[in-house]
Amino acid sequence: MPLPVNVEEYEPLARARLSTEVTDFIAGGAEDERTLQRNREAFSRWTLRPRVLTGVSGPRLATTVLGEPVALPVLLAPTGEHALSHPDGEAATARAAAAAGTILISSTASSLSLEAVAAATSAPLWFQLYCFSDRELTASLVTRAKAAGYRAVVLTVDAPVLGRREREIRSGYAVRRALHRGNFSDGRQGSFDASLTWEVVPWLRELSGLPVVVKGILCGEDAALAVAHGAAAVIVSNHGGRQLDGAPASLDVLPEVVAAVQGRAEVYLDGGVRRGTDVLMALALGARAVCIGRPYLWALAAGGQAGVEHVLTLLRDEIVTALTLCGRSGVDAVDRSLCRPRPHDGR
Amino acid sequence: MPLPVNVEEYEPLARARLSTEVTDFIAGGAEDERTLQRNREAFSRWTLRPRVLTGVSGPRLATTVLGEPVALPVLLAPTGEHALSHPDGEAATARAAAAAGTILISSTASSLSLEAVAAATSAPLWFQLYCFSDRELTASLVTRAKAAGYRAVVLTVDAPVLGRREREIRSGYAVRRALHRGNFSDGRQGSFDASLTWEVVPWLRELSGLPVVVKGILCGEDAALAVAHGAAAVIVSNHGGRQLDGAPASLDVLPEVVAAVQGRAEVYLDGGVRRGTDVLMALALGARAVCIGRPYLWALAAGGQAGVEHVLTLLRDEIVTALTLCGRSGVDAVDRSLCRPRPHDGR
Amino acid sequence: MPLPVNVEEYEPLARARLSTEVTDFIAGGAEDERTLQRNREAFSRWTLRPRVLTGVSGPRLATTVLGEPVALPVLLAPTGEHALSHPDGEAATARAAAAAGTILISSTASSLSLEAVAAATSAPLWFQLYCFSDRELTASLVTRAKAAGYRAVVLTVDAPVLGRREREIRSGYAVRRALHRGNFSDGRQGSFDASLTWEVVPWLRELSGLPVVVKGILCGEDAALAVAHGAAAVIVSNHGGRQLDGAPASLDVLPEVVAAVQGRAEVYLDGGVRRGTDVLMALALGARAVCIGRPYLWALAAGGQAGVEHVLTLLRDEIVTALTLCGRSGVDAVDRSLCRPRPHDGR
Amino acid sequence: MPLPVNVEEYEPLARARLSTEVTDFIAGGAEDERTLQRNREAFSRWTLRPRVLTGVSGPRLATTVLGEPVALPVLLAPTGEHALSHPDGEAATARAAAAAGTILISSTASSLSLEAVAAATSAPLWFQLYCFSDRELTASLVTRAKAAGYRAVVLTVDAPVLGRREREIRSGYAVRRALHRGNFSDGRQGSFDASLTWEVVPWLRELSGLPVVVKGILCGEDAALAVAHGAAAVIVSNHGGRQLDGAPASLDVLPEVVAAVQGRAEVYLDGGVRRGTDVLMALALGARAVCIGRPYLWALAAGGQAGVEHVLTLLRDEIVTALTLCGRSGVDAVDRSLCRPRPHDGR
Repeated sequence: MPLPVNVEEYEPLARARLSTEVTDFIAGGAEDERTLQRNREAFSRWTLRPRVLTGVSGPRLATTVLGEPVALPVLLAPTGEHALSHPDGEAATARAAAAAGTILISSTASSLSLEAVAAATSAPLWFQLYCFSDRELTASLVTRAKAAGYRAVVLTVDAPVLGRREREIRSGYAVRRALHRGNFSDGRQGSFDASLTWEVVPWLRELSGLPVVVKGILCGEDAALAVAHGAAAVIVSNHGGRQLDGAPASLDVLPEVVAAVQGRAEVYLDGGVRRGTDVLMALALGARAVCIGRPYLWALAAGGQAGVEHVLTLLRDEIVTALTLCGRSGVDAVDRSLCRPRPHDGR
Repeated sequence: MPLPVNVEEYEPLARARLSTEVTDFIAGGAEDERTLQRNREAFSRWTLRPRVLTGVSGPRLATTVLGEPVALPVLLAPTGEHALSHPDGEAATARAAAAAGTILISSTASSLSLEAVAAATSAPLWFQLYCFSDRELTASLVTRAKAAGYRAVVLTVDAPVLGRREREIRSGYAVRRALHRGNFSDGRQGSFDASLTWEVVPWLRELSGLPVVVKGILCGEDAALAVAHGAAAVIVSNHGGRQLDGAPASLDVLPEVVAAVQGRAEVYLDGGVRRGTDVLMALALGARAVCIGRPYLWALAAGGQAGVEHVLTLLRDEIVTALTLCGRSGVDAVDRSLCRPRPHDGR
Repeated sequence: MPLPVNVEEYEPLARARLSTEVTDFIAGGAEDERTLQRNREAFSRWTLRPRVLTGVSGPRLATTVLGEPVALPVLLAPTGEHALSHPDGEAATARAAAAAGTILISSTASSLSLEAVAAATSAPLWFQLYCFSDRELTASLVTRAKAAGYRAVVLTVDAPVLGRREREIRSGYAVRRALHRGNFSDGRQGSFDASLTWEVVPWLRELSGLPVVVKGILCGEDAALAVAHGAAAVIVSNHGGRQLDGAPASLDVLPEVVAAVQGRAEVYLDGGVRRGTDVLMALALGARAVCIGRPYLWALAAGGQAGVEHVLTLLRDEIVTALTLCGRSGVDAVDRSLCRPRPHDGR
Repeated sequence: MPLPVNVEEYEPLARARLSTEVTDFIAGGAEDERTLQRNREAFSRWTLRPRVLTGVSGPRLATTVLGEPVALPVLLAPTGEHALSHPDGEAATARAAAAAGTILISSTASSLSLEAVAAATSAPLWFQLYCFSDRELTASLVTRAKAAGYRAVVLTVDAPVLGRREREIRSGYAVRRALHRGNFSDGRQGSFDASLTWEVVPWLRELSGLPVVVKGILCGEDAALAVAHGAAAVIVSNHGGRQLDGAPASLDVLPEVVAAVQGRAEVYLDGGVRRGTDVLMALALGARAVCIGRPYLWALAAGGQAGVEHVLTLLRDEIVTALTLCGRSGVDAVDRSLCRPRPHDGR
């Protein structure tokens, strides 16, 4: 097998190794998958405006997220059950993130326990949290994550109920029912707390003593509320198109969120990032970093830890090339002037 | 047969059971079917802006239409000749509507007589009226509907003549000529009154003592005229794309109609509604309720009364999910801020 | 063969009877045929806004063009060599126009002589003129047309040279070289006068004593010049996409031309008209009438005179239906309020 | 083989003669080839507004570039290694340019040495320069070009590093590794100077005594900087979509560049030019001339020098036709009024 030359090429390799049910579980979005598709399309609405003869070369990719140094502005988004993709599960992913100098946001729904994930690497990790109706269960997860050395709590707020993912419904949730849920002794996680309010953010801060990242923000008002309740960062995300079909592409609402946050918190973005130029667009529109999800799951399935590392290498190489061709000295030199709306078909 | 997971999946099931002629009769639109197609596309021009951590769960779907309580803001639009889809005809549809807690707007062109439809259920029904050149015939229909307990008269105003439905023309109107027209003793309805004026609205109010709903409004001026002539509600509709090809998508003109009505009448919409998110968009743009047509006819063909009930259950489930993911406590909490135009391809 | 139910259905019938070379000659446009395609697309940029309960029925289609009564606002555009489509050539077309109560604009490049075309019918005809470098030859054509009873001279101004019609180039102009050119005793027409100026318009008026129509206007400036030089009417046209590929759709520039003319001349349009609703859109945007070209050539090929009559009947029926559904009492009641831009995909 | 009737028809002829590797080398763009595709699409965003009866015929195509007379406003863009297309390499191309009365911009990466290219023709040539980290090597190229009679130095500024051309990556850069690089005695060119600044422009002017053209400008700011540093002309270019995928179409940024230059330098454009009407659009938007790349490489492969000449003849014929149909007396009579944005799909 020739090594993929871009991130997208991992998907067919993965599909050749996974069952249709698992593939559907990973690839699927809610209902008609319009939001899923729009995440990708949104990047085509912008062009990059390269500058020439700026005298820069060898651009710097390093940055920080919540003060944590990362080698490139690409984090691994929380996704459930890595063991569906590869027997090494989150251990492989965590090691790949460490090797690439970035952070895995490990999911509440990980195959391995959060302690096992933490044990796989000495690199920093963040913990993604679903808040359950059983608040004690929730608190115990946070306490365990803190104890295991996780450096931030990433609270997912766009899933009070599960979106209607029809590929899963058709299979009778075959994959989902068989999950082992490494963080739950009895293999069953609780039910989501559908009536959660913003008070959960200060509660988590207090409980954990860690910075809280709010994941699943799609409008300026909620971004401002997150900041007002003490969030250290927000992730502009529609859950990879898996929750509300009809929700906007995350890139489309990024500028609104950035404007509302006014620099009082960091802003990340996930949804549709497949290219180094996508990363640059998100940065130009105000994100500090982006997260990728499906791309590393396909690579994990196709090549284990090495696959995930390679995906990060590909993105790094693409970012280096794009920054150089844009005449920018590093990711910190990317600003709004790098992007311009693409003229639409009629102009 | 696995149960459909969404409304659209009933169409192929129905097609497998119906003749091409009947399928064409149900599915067809006027001329090039552009308006038919645009009804559906119009929903893709909007995105839903979810809000998070609002503390709401288990959203309320109940509302009222003309004071009548309904369990969800989805009515069954008037469509002709349900017996083409299923031997139980409108009796099945009426019972399904009752079971789901909503209203069937029974058509002048029903297979069963309006009295037989009324006898099938104790739930409220509305009567859709075509006004014929023979005004006495028209009056007798209204009087019969009143006597049978119908609670409103829904006057169709967009059919002074039949649109050019080419699928029907090609078949020599084979289906249409064989209709039995349950409301007409001789099986033949009269000809439409092509020179009808707004005076018909107060005439119907007077004659029936019932609220009059004007169906087939596509601009603000006509909506204002409907209100001025005493209409209790208007239905923004292009007759499912079956009348004037080139007419706008109903969703596209909804805001204009709502603005013209200024709260003096209720506004409903039909045309292209296939998803719970479609319902929310229509509500956000000012509709009080929507009507569905073809979706329940396909379900009626595929599964009789149970099929129609299931379509309403699917929509109900989708609305519940969408409201929850949008952080709205109920359909009454949906307002204009829920929707935002989708950026077009070039921006 | 079942009778076509719309105008477009004649094309495949014609193609079954014609050689590829003739089909290409009729169907082809210049270069990439973008303008050809855009003529048709332009109509999809508008919606018709129907009005209801206006009390009108049986709308009037009759109007006048240059004072000449026509039964519907659809003229037959000048096209060359009808004998390629049918042995009866322009005689069949002229008789069909007469039967439908409209006008054939007979081409300089007709298969029959202009006298023979005139002899085929007692109905009014207009004569389309190409102005040749040989001004005497040109004058003789005009004089003959006047003598034969033609009522107007339609001067084509968009063909100083022939557009690059690649389908024809590929065939080595096989069809064009074999044309018999009924108006030229030696079967060879002269070369176009590529350096013609506006002075030709008053010259033709003087010479013929007939109203002069300028065909091939695509901008307001030229429309104003036509009026200033005494044109009685202009035809907004890009020669059916056969001349400059990249020229705008004729419908797209109609409003600009109408604005420039300021009612001082009549404005017609050709290009892409295939439906009654297209006719209404053109009228709403300010045209007094439209011309059709390829549609009647296909019908001529498929059914001779009867085919052409049927095309006009189909358009008449569609216009009647559309006017009725729009609540307009006749073509003279169509105004700008009938049309509204269609929202584009992103809004 | 019938002679191609347009420029695009040379590509399939060439593909039939070239290996997949060479075809990919020529045809390929960076990453997803979006910018490559957008170069072509950009021309469809404009329409040409023809004027009629202007009295002009036989339009003049001749113009000058940097004072050098050319017979038509179409230059041959610098492209590497013509010997991949045809054994005669740049000698054939240079002779074809001379025969057509235009200029070949010969590439640093030519198959033949710049001296050999110059020896092939007495017509004027320009020399395209890549600036290497080895400044002496660079200087020697410039000095050699000056000595060989080249009349201008065209500095490529958009390639500090090579874009990610995935077709090449997949083949392991098979073609690129086998190139013979006629200008380098050891067959190996140096590495690009990735940290070049604007000071290179006055350095080249001084060194060569020739006008310097800056190739690869995509925004107004850089165009102004080029002028400020003494560039005699700029070429709006994205390197044929081969460098930064996501960069704008060159035509899309032409107006911005022209506005920034304010007539202080000449502006040329390459990217997507395939038709005479494309040339006119670029001229209308402010370019003095355009360059073509792939079109002449395909023609070179298919027909050697004669193929390249024919491509220039086809473009010349198309420009003549388009200018005549637009009523313009020559390329110098083309101004901004010739172009208008095409209405987009929703209006």
